[in-house]
Amino acid sequence: MKHKIKLISLAYIISSNMLFGQTNDSLVIRKIFSEALSNGKSYELLDHLCNNIGGRLSGSPEAAKAVEWSKQVMEGFGFDRVFLQEIMVPHWVRGEKEYAEIIKSKGSERITVPVCALGGSVGTGSKGITAKVVEVHNFEELEKLGGKKLKGKIVFYNRPMDPTHITTFRAYSGAVDQRWAGAMEAAKYGAIGVVVRSMTLALDDHPHTGSMGYGNDSDGHYEDEINVEKDINKIPAAAISTKGAELLSSLLKKDPGLQFHFKMSCETLPDVKSYNVVGEIKGNEFPEEIILVGGHLDSWDLGDGAHDDGAGCVQSIEVLRIFKALDIRPKRTIRAVLFMNEENGLRGGKKYAELAKMNKETHIAAIESDGGGSSPIGFGVSGKNEHVDKIISWTKLFEPYGHYQITKGGGGADISPLKDQNVTLIGLRVDSQRYFDYHHAVTDTFDKVNKRELELGAAAMAALVYLLDEHGL
Amino acid sequence: MKHKIKLISLAYIISSNMLFGQTNDSLVIRKIFSEALSNGKSYELLDHLCNNIGGRLSGSPEAAKAVEWSKQVMEGFGFDRVFLQEIMVPHWVRGEKEYAEIIKSKGSERITVPVCALGGSVGTGSKGITAKVVEVHNFEELEKLGGKKLKGKIVFYNRPMDPTHITTFRAYSGAVDQRWAGAMEAAKYGAIGVVVRSMTLALDDHPHTGSMGYGNDSDGHYEDEINVEKDINKIPAAAISTKGAELLSSLLKKDPGLQFHFKMSCETLPDVKSYNVVGEIKGNEFPEEIILVGGHLDSWDLGDGAHDDGAGCVQSIEVLRIFKALDIRPKRTIRAVLFMNEENGLRGGKKYAELAKMNKETHIAAIESDGGGSSPIGFGVSGKNEHVDKIISWTKLFEPYGHYQITKGGGGADISPLKDQNVTLIGLRVDSQRYFDYHHAVTDTFDKVNKRELELGAAAMAALVYLLDEHGL
Repeated sequence: MKHKIKLISLAYIISSNMLFGQTNDSLVIRKIFSEALSNGKSYELLDHLCNNIGGRLSGSPEAAKAVEWSKQVMEGFGFDRVFLQEIMVPHWVRGEKEYAEIIKSKGSERITVPVCALGGSVGTGSKGITAKVVEVHNFEELEKLGGKKLKGKIVFYNRPMDPTHITTFRAYSGAVDQRWAGAMEAAKYGAIGVVVRSMTLALDDHPHTGSMGYGNDSDGHYEDEINVEKDINKIPAAAISTKGAELLSSLLKKDPGLQFHFKMSCETLPDVKSYNVVGEIKGNEFPEEIILVGGHLDSWDLGDGAHDDGAGCVQSIEVLRIFKALDIRPKRTIRAVLFMNEENGLRGGKKYAELAKMNKETHIAAIESDGGGSSPIGFGVSGKNEHVDKIISWTKLFEPYGHYQITKGGGGADISPLKDQNVTLIGLRVDSQRYFDYHHAVTDTFDKVNKRELELGAAAMAALVYLLDEHGL
Repeated sequence: MKHKIKLISLAYIISSNMLFGQTNDSLVIRKIFSEALSNGKSYELLDHLCNNIGGRLSGSPEAAKAVEWSKQVMEGFGFDRVFLQEIMVPHWVRGEKEYAEIIKSKGSERITVPVCALGGSVGTGSKGITAKVVEVHNFEELEKLGGKKLKGKIVFYNRPMDPTHITTFRAYSGAVDQRWAGAMEAAKYGAIGVVVRSMTLALDDHPHTGSMGYGNDSDGHYEDEINVEKDINKIPAAAISTKGAELLSSLLKKDPGLQFHFKMSCETLPDVKSYNVVGEIKGNEFPEEIILVGGHLDSWDLGDGAHDDGAGCVQSIEVLRIFKALDIRPKRTIRAVLFMNEENGLRGGKKYAELAKMNKETHIAAIESDGGGSSPIGFGVSGKNEHVDKIISWTKLFEPYGHYQITKGGGGADISPLKDQNVTLIGLRVDSQRYFDYHHAVTDTFDKVNKRELELGAAAMAALVYLLDEHGL
């Protein structure tokens, strides 16, 4: 009987502790969301970043301004330490606005279509390129056609993103090989240029840029050209708007002899010095354990990099601001990291991981927001099973806020180099339906981001940082 | 031993049947989503409704056009039966564009502010109304001030929607009493007009209209004036933009003697004949059992009624189109109902329920989409517990599509009069963050609706209709 009572007491103590823990966590998380939604600063920060600085491709004056500004912002919020990490970044420039036209074979009628250079492409020379067009949908078709049919031609990649995927990132993954490797593959058969259907599910007039390479990096990022096949000819690569692609395709059916002309003056200049920007709040129990929250400060040059990834940057700063505003002194050190050069090199992410290793830092988790500033729906978590399971066990705490999807698998490009250091990598998951309407296009501007959606994302990350800090991994 | 084998066999049969059932359901639902996302017609229908017809307040020529057009659309899709249900609707008209200004007490400086008449309000007369302003935040404050301080004044209701609610509809519910009953309450104390802070969480320059009444309907709808307190003076009621409200409030603090002037020529004309528009696909097993899916065809006049509720109308039509496109012959009769006059009278919903009762129709369930065309996140279900539980048990089938929130409680204004007939009432739940940025304002236009989000909502409803049809309730 005594034994039984003991068991009951123990069960009572455990359950009431658990109850208290959960209740206290719930209360803190509620405060975090209320702070973000009532007094949030992320939206006005994004306004400044987009409208006063604008698009900030690595190596550009705007990227340098963004570094300076974000450092000042974090200092202004009174974070314990704000510092820069120096890196050398690629410096690709677009040059003059691109021009393209379809030239019909009969009567030489010319129809202008919207194009832009893909990031990393060589230019066309001042006269541009004019040639007949071969439409393909994948590299198998290209191979079948071979050099005989492709030599001297412009290859037109026109496989759309598959609209039946519910998550648009999947549709993107299934089509982006055309953008990344299209020029490299077509060059093998003697093509003199490529035009790639823009990576968007929307049917519109905006060409979407993005990285391409002449090397072998399979993850879609502009890599240092270690693996370049030496004998590959670098041919110019442009993106064409989806409406332009539809038009070109339909005209080709009627008039296979038509020609395509495009002119781009883009080029790659010598590397430029730039920086990751880091702000931190020191932990008061385990200061040597770091929880990172970040996004990337660079963006493509066409729009203002509002969703990609101004949102992730201002949300990361906001996480630390919320901790200060609510006077939550973390046990562990919390860092907001604004990475440079995610779009065309990942040099910032690589340097950060390198320095962390060199300085023997211990990161217990890294969270990245790089899916746009839309409504958060959960987190994707990669790491040891017990760590993933622990984070998934917190799902109930997020459900009142509409974040139901906390599952295994996920992370972010900038934090991915930390994988070797056994860091649990986490990506903020957001509603992805609108993202590719704006992605890497002139339309990625401040007005496309909703204040509350942005704030909810910041609050979700702050809540997860709080739980990671409170309970460890 | 034999007994045991029997049990195992039975278990096997049951589980394989269940498995087959779930698998088949999954397959059909996958086809529904693919059809909506690949060949969906909802977006182009919404384009026409918004951009070729526009805002369609009950009784307006645009509402009449929308009836005619939507009937033709459903006939064009070859639904088994398309018919109209005649109703008499209120006919309130805005008249000339409203005007308002703040007049400072010293130097008589005048500052124009954006206002609009609330739907149902009386006009101000051609000279407008000019008076001193008393700011209040709720009816308790009003009562405390009393007639002595309110007589001859304009009452300014300035309690914002609470941004800390995660679901914006809650924030709306918590503030909309000011819009609905503000004039009626203020008139009791001799006020001569009211100005109400717009019902939106955004800080912008757009006044948001919406129904108000001089009667006692507590649910925020323009009711027939059965309960009007006979001695109440009808005073004009305007909405002011949130930025205008902030300005007025801050100026009042410095200059309590300032005056407000506004002019509105709105009026209520005699009732007009209008219609609900109904399309149906006949069931081939239980044709007498009806599953309804609907939205409301009328909208406010300021914008184009894209989110509210053009989205729900075109999604409802799309549900039936998907059934036809996939050649799913339903067992039960499926009806798309486009209700008239949700915004200022609910006459369509009431008439529909009345006719259903008179014609002894059996509705097993009614689904309404009236929360905007944003990403669907689930359904709210009201009805008998066993029916609610059955629908909740289908959650797993919706999870791959991001609809995780299928819970008890929900429905829609237009279908609510069917409650007396024991119909399970279901509301499509969508991401609500952006909704009140556009709600009842000039900004509720086609470009604010995302194609995929709209299509996902239609697919979600089609999937639920399919399950209701296949398995009954």
